[in-house]
Amino acid sequence: MSTTVKAYGTEAVDVALHEIDIQRRALQAHDVEMEILYCGICHSDLHQIKNDFGGTQWPIVPGHEIVGRVTAVGDHVKNFRVGELAAVGCIVDSCGHCEYCNDGIEQFCEEGVTFSFNSEDKVSGGHTFGGFSKTYVCNERYVLHMPEFQNLASAAPLLCAGITVYSPLKHWGAGPGKKVGILGIGGLGHLAIKIAKAMGAHVTVFTTSPSKVEDAKRLGADEAVLSSDAEQMAQYGRKLHFIIDTVSAKHDVNAYLNLLRHDGAVVLVGLPPEPLEVQAFGVIVGNRSFAGSNIGGIPETQEMLDFCFKHNIVSESEIIDIQYVNEAFERLEKGDVKYRFVIDMASLQN
Amino acid sequence: MSTTVKAYGTEAVDVALHEIDIQRRALQAHDVEMEILYCGICHSDLHQIKNDFGGTQWPIVPGHEIVGRVTAVGDHVKNFRVGELAAVGCIVDSCGHCEYCNDGIEQFCEEGVTFSFNSEDKVSGGHTFGGFSKTYVCNERYVLHMPEFQNLASAAPLLCAGITVYSPLKHWGAGPGKKVGILGIGGLGHLAIKIAKAMGAHVTVFTTSPSKVEDAKRLGADEAVLSSDAEQMAQYGRKLHFIIDTVSAKHDVNAYLNLLRHDGAVVLVGLPPEPLEVQAFGVIVGNRSFAGSNIGGIPETQEMLDFCFKHNIVSESEIIDIQYVNEAFERLEKGDVKYRFVIDMASLQN
Repeated sequence: MSTTVKAYGTEAVDVALHEIDIQRRALQAHDVEMEILYCGICHSDLHQIKNDFGGTQWPIVPGHEIVGRVTAVGDHVKNFRVGELAAVGCIVDSCGHCEYCNDGIEQFCEEGVTFSFNSEDKVSGGHTFGGFSKTYVCNERYVLHMPEFQNLASAAPLLCAGITVYSPLKHWGAGPGKKVGILGIGGLGHLAIKIAKAMGAHVTVFTTSPSKVEDAKRLGADEAVLSSDAEQMAQYGRKLHFIIDTVSAKHDVNAYLNLLRHDGAVVLVGLPPEPLEVQAFGVIVGNRSFAGSNIGGIPETQEMLDFCFKHNIVSESEIIDIQYVNEAFERLEKGDVKYRFVIDMASLQN
Repeated sequence: MSTTVKAYGTEAVDVALHEIDIQRRALQAHDVEMEILYCGICHSDLHQIKNDFGGTQWPIVPGHEIVGRVTAVGDHVKNFRVGELAAVGCIVDSCGHCEYCNDGIEQFCEEGVTFSFNSEDKVSGGHTFGGFSKTYVCNERYVLHMPEFQNLASAAPLLCAGITVYSPLKHWGAGPGKKVGILGIGGLGHLAIKIAKAMGAHVTVFTTSPSKVEDAKRLGADEAVLSSDAEQMAQYGRKLHFIIDTVSAKHDVNAYLNLLRHDGAVVLVGLPPEPLEVQAFGVIVGNRSFAGSNIGGIPETQEMLDFCFKHNIVSESEIIDIQYVNEAFERLEKGDVKYRFVIDMASLQN
């Protein structure tokens, strides 16, 4: 029998988020139930509640950077015990047997991955509800072991923002001797700086905001460049091995392609709604790529959590109560957060 | 003292190519002089005589798929002897000591590569004149050993079209077990089919032209798809490891990004003058890339020639006299050639 739990959600684009009741399924043999302690707020939560990509299913309960404590486990659960810290990110179900699932890149599951919210729920029917709620229930295959971060709240954004930048940083070879660019300093970019530095790369940040130049250095960047300054930009021509592009609005990627060494890539992890224009010479000269990267699979997400714990990396966060969430979304839309909101879910009373 | 030689060139966009005289430099210690036997006609010759990219220097003598026989060598030339076959492709000079030149990717020379025509001539001043001429002179470092192809004329297009597709096919791993797409069947595409097959890949061709579907199979493609047929296209979703995109006009690359497996790439080798629109989801889903590739360096060009000789690969060509060249360019512009014009330079009388 399913359980009614409190959540924060909304029934329409023009209705503010408010307290609603949702159902969490009865524990199945391989399920883990957790009480949610913290949940980060990501730009894609905002996209979905605004229905920016179409396809939002109502009511929607966002939240996919979920840190909790295990409160119950199904009879066949092997890897989690009641009382342990645990976490859920973007992925909560997949077919489990296709080539992609077998390779641990469940985000590309052939039968379609189930995301933690606003996704068809193949177990219970309807659609999934995210982490702006008291509890989460899912198969242990998609549950992460959460290390005992000193600042546990600020570790929540690792579950989406962290893995989204960790995966391409690793794939494209961030490490000693590599010059990595980070385009944009926000929720994704500020974690990319920290993770790339911890991997041993030389990090150059590109920002449109003069106020963020100093901040980039404080966060560990070796260099920070105001991208509107053509003279500064010209100095970086053909210097970088690759660039993580965190910008979610339309922008000129050709200017950044030109900063790449041969075989380099601008790797998009932001989600601009409009297509980006790529000039033929931008990719042909230097055999360069305009590439993308989409979160990361479960094994790599666990690896990233362990890496960040070892290197003491968490998000710079503003911890808020759930009742502040609508204001937080407004500020997020304006870029007014350094650099991630995290909801203390204790504020959602039983 | 320089030598006056006959060539075919023009002084302006609206003037047809005609016979002109040009100067070839006196042989320097490391120079090779060759009598030109055959010269292919490439779409970029057309772009340059039409000044499509700006920057054309007049008079222009095009031609950069040059096969000849060595007629003289400088005192310090080690690797070529008079009477041997030789060839010159796109690259005829570079700094010779930067990181890129040392790595044999002279096309990306830090000080700027010199192309075989319409490029600043750092040795003699002025600009370089291409292969629509009686002779060519350049430093032996940039001269290729031309294998004794049975059909030597049809081997000329390997010098640009061949290396342009060989390099990305090799870089992106064409070989047994790999599914490679070829987008467009023209000068580049038809050689890409042959080379990819010789490398052991499974080759699927995409064409907008129903008449080319059968031709693609005759050329060795395993499958040929009419790209306007949405139903056929849908069957290839997520099936290909990478696609060589030879299209030189504006086109929808997103439709092809969707045919890629994860980590796959659409690799542009055509030169559309307008930018191409790439949707964020096109590259983010599946961690895919829109990449480019620019000819290949001298060592790889030699490797490609030896590979094609071993596998008996030459272009499908229409051999013409130089006097037909303006009509040939008109037909090339309409795509009316299967698949490459090659000029028999004996037609340019002394």
